[in-house]
Amino acid sequence: MATTDPKGPSLAVQDFYPEDVAHCYGCGRLNEHGLQLKTVWEGNDTVSRFTPRPYHTAIPGYIYGGLIASLLDCHGTGGAAAAMLRREGREVGDGEAPRFVTASLLVEFLKPTPLGPELEVRGRVVEITDRKVVLEETLSAGGVVTARGRVVAVRMPEGMVRKP
Amino acid sequence: MATTDPKGPSLAVQDFYPEDVAHCYGCGRLNEHGLQLKTVWEGNDTVSRFTPRPYHTAIPGYIYGGLIASLLDCHGTGGAAAAMLRREGREVGDGEAPRFVTASLLVEFLKPTPLGPELEVRGRVVEITDRKVVLEETLSAGGVVTARGRVVAVRMPEGMVRKP
Repeated sequence: MATTDPKGPSLAVQDFYPEDVAHCYGCGRLNEHGLQLKTVWEGNDTVSRFTPRPYHTAIPGYIYGGLIASLLDCHGTGGAAAAMLRREGREVGDGEAPRFVTASLLVEFLKPTPLGPELEVRGRVVEITDRKVVLEETLSAGGVVTARGRVVAVRMPEGMVRKP
Repeated sequence: MATTDPKGPSLAVQDFYPEDVAHCYGCGRLNEHGLQLKTVWEGNDTVSRFTPRPYHTAIPGYIYGGLIASLLDCHGTGGAAAAMLRREGREVGDGEAPRFVTASLLVEFLKPTPLGPELEVRGRVVEITDRKVVLEETLSAGGVVTARGRVVAVRMPEGMVRKP
């Protein structure tokens, strides 16, 4: 789907993480084993889409909760990065994106999530300061919301990246 | 480590899930792609141990949040099953274990979790009824608690398993 953002083309924030912090299993473009989640703006919503693999099962026919938690978690840190760029007067693609880590994650599983259709995670920023972003999220499958999330993301602490 | 449970040998509850609900990516013994988490009793604690793989990274050197959420989630449903057996006067291994699904999961990331040492998830039942179990959990690496979890697990709804 193309962006509906009037501000311009929809670029994925994870494509602008600095190279030394782009290896996350959930959303790092440099992790060949991982999920490589991408997050874009659609208006004031942050959106990620992901098609699960057949082995991402819980009870047969449904998705296991850990995948849902992973998508909500990485969408949360990605959405926080995108929101911080806007707060600073920039858009995704204007230089490197800031890197956030998760302080807390709440997942409410509203109903079983079917394994098959593409999943959509949609987030909205509900609080933002210079170092913290809180997002509320929904996860839907085939247009039906099956889970809700709330992520508190904070800027990655200085010195967390070990220099070689 | 051997069990410290005076009641007998430490069997993993996931080894007693019925065959048609033993495919979870996080904890199903029949999912060859998955994590195959195992949960045992140690006294009144439920315990799972897991050694992450090199690609389970977030920021290099640390574990991505989605794995931590997965371990807490599947340990929660496993611990709930073990606790329900005891409530019914049985122990793990006395027939099939009941299957639980997660209603909500809260993860508090207290500090970065290093990638390398074996992880230990330890849970304690704080509430139990005939259909619901609430567990509080810690996740530690090398003896240091790096995350806390709270899982509300409910009995898998009748009819959730699609019969072939």
